[in-house]
Amino acid sequence: MIILDGKKIAQDIRNELKADIDNLKFLGKGIPGLVAILVGDNPASEIYVRNKAKACEEIGMRAKTEKHPADMKEEDLLRLIESYNNNKQYHGILVQLPLPKHIDEDKVIEAISPQKDVDGFHPISVGNLVIGKPAFRSCTPAGIQELLIRYKIETKGKHLVVLGRSNIVGKPIANIMLQKKEFANSIVTICHSAAPDVSYYTKQADILVAAMGSPKFVKGNMVKEGVVVIDVGINRIEDSTASKGYRLVGDVDFDEVSKQASYISPVPGGVGPMTIAMLLKNTYEGFIKYGR
Amino acid sequence: MIILDGKKIAQDIRNELKADIDNLKFLGKGIPGLVAILVGDNPASEIYVRNKAKACEEIGMRAKTEKHPADMKEEDLLRLIESYNNNKQYHGILVQLPLPKHIDEDKVIEAISPQKDVDGFHPISVGNLVIGKPAFRSCTPAGIQELLIRYKIETKGKHLVVLGRSNIVGKPIANIMLQKKEFANSIVTICHSAAPDVSYYTKQADILVAAMGSPKFVKGNMVKEGVVVIDVGINRIEDSTASKGYRLVGDVDFDEVSKQASYISPVPGGVGPMTIAMLLKNTYEGFIKYGR
Repeated sequence: MIILDGKKIAQDIRNELKADIDNLKFLGKGIPGLVAILVGDNPASEIYVRNKAKACEEIGMRAKTEKHPADMKEEDLLRLIESYNNNKQYHGILVQLPLPKHIDEDKVIEAISPQKDVDGFHPISVGNLVIGKPAFRSCTPAGIQELLIRYKIETKGKHLVVLGRSNIVGKPIANIMLQKKEFANSIVTICHSAAPDVSYYTKQADILVAAMGSPKFVKGNMVKEGVVVIDVGINRIEDSTASKGYRLVGDVDFDEVSKQASYISPVPGGVGPMTIAMLLKNTYEGFIKYGR
Repeated sequence: MIILDGKKIAQDIRNELKADIDNLKFLGKGIPGLVAILVGDNPASEIYVRNKAKACEEIGMRAKTEKHPADMKEEDLLRLIESYNNNKQYHGILVQLPLPKHIDEDKVIEAISPQKDVDGFHPISVGNLVIGKPAFRSCTPAGIQELLIRYKIETKGKHLVVLGRSNIVGKPIANIMLQKKEFANSIVTICHSAAPDVSYYTKQADILVAAMGSPKFVKGNMVKEGVVVIDVGINRIEDSTASKGYRLVGDVDFDEVSKQASYISPVPGGVGPMTIAMLLKNTYEGFIKYGR
């Protein structure tokens, strides 16, 4: 059994990007930039945004955080986004979700130029991904595919079973992996809460992507010998022995399933670190494609 | 075994739309309109466009065909589309594909206002469909779902297997049927040419959508007893006994599979007629939603 070491792969990607950006600097070609827009005082969001900015700076990317009060008007936010759509210093625009309730998230996401939509949440990015045209792919599914690529896991003709149908993981990873493209070309099943027996599907998986947000849901007897397991879940469970009073577990019962698996991603340290790495990569690619 | 009579259901839909449009006229609220744009002299395209225009007129909808020579400039086509985007008489714009090679189809499709994209091919329509937001759904998958609805076929929690991953049928029907919505909520598998053994998947199907364009591909021993079969294939095969020298068959071997099926759509007379009916319905709904 091999651990899919997202932490290591993410670091590799960051190192590669750093080298690329050093090279851009050396050649005087400018550098990519990411702006993160934060509205309100959600402490978790603040941590996420800080980590993203830090990750940018570490690889020599321009990073800016736009922090605004919770009562920011929707029209002001839309105007702010528009100004960054036209700002040549920034090639990625990220609006940290959730937004305060008086702001229409869909409207905000659609205001971001598809050429700077590094989160890949704009409907036009989603649509282009589905029909196989170039598009920013949302960072978590992009990170999942990248993990499979880096570990040279065969995907062509394999049965890839996705648990969960969220817009940010389940649906996009399914639509990425069914494409007739290299590192994809899988037979894809999307399974979810309506299934009378989830294990009927999980047992068939050559590759299992667990992304339904249910702690330790996938047990050892629900998978077949040799399965490749990607655990996207991040669930807090109480743990009085931990200093914070909780610990993080995935959607997969790691102790049980790892005995059956050929490859498995841990939580934490699997898909999580890949997500930020792919955000950086999207921003870099946006710069290369549209930035000059 | 019950035949899914697309011809009859399509006629029901047309009758309903005609009644709705008669009512609009009676109330003096205007009528929906569809413009079809045809570039070049493809005889098949001319027939399609003529049939669509005729179907519009039969239900009292405004119909116009814009026929242009094969050497029409791309920029002139884009300008024509823009003029219809701003024309309040027309609520649906259809560009008949394929276009001559010097014209970029993607660019043309993206030029159509998403509010008039009754074919549902614009990436933003595809994206909104995937993320579960209101959007025009392309006509063939919409027609498939409508057939299931009209025959009151349970879809929730059922295993729906799609053969084929085209942008106009396979991908959209999969993305429609996996939504957590009424008349959907299925567990969806998308199977395609990379599968080492297609029958492994087809045998599992509670509902099978065959859309890979391979004549009589699905045989009786590839499905289970009681399966619901939707045959989207339209293939010409030679037939010296037919007056035209050929006849149309689906992707399903009807004689064999109908013995196993609980419901099955024939070819012709199944999904085919539904496609035009859904085009009319999309145009009507575009008028109701955006037209006034």
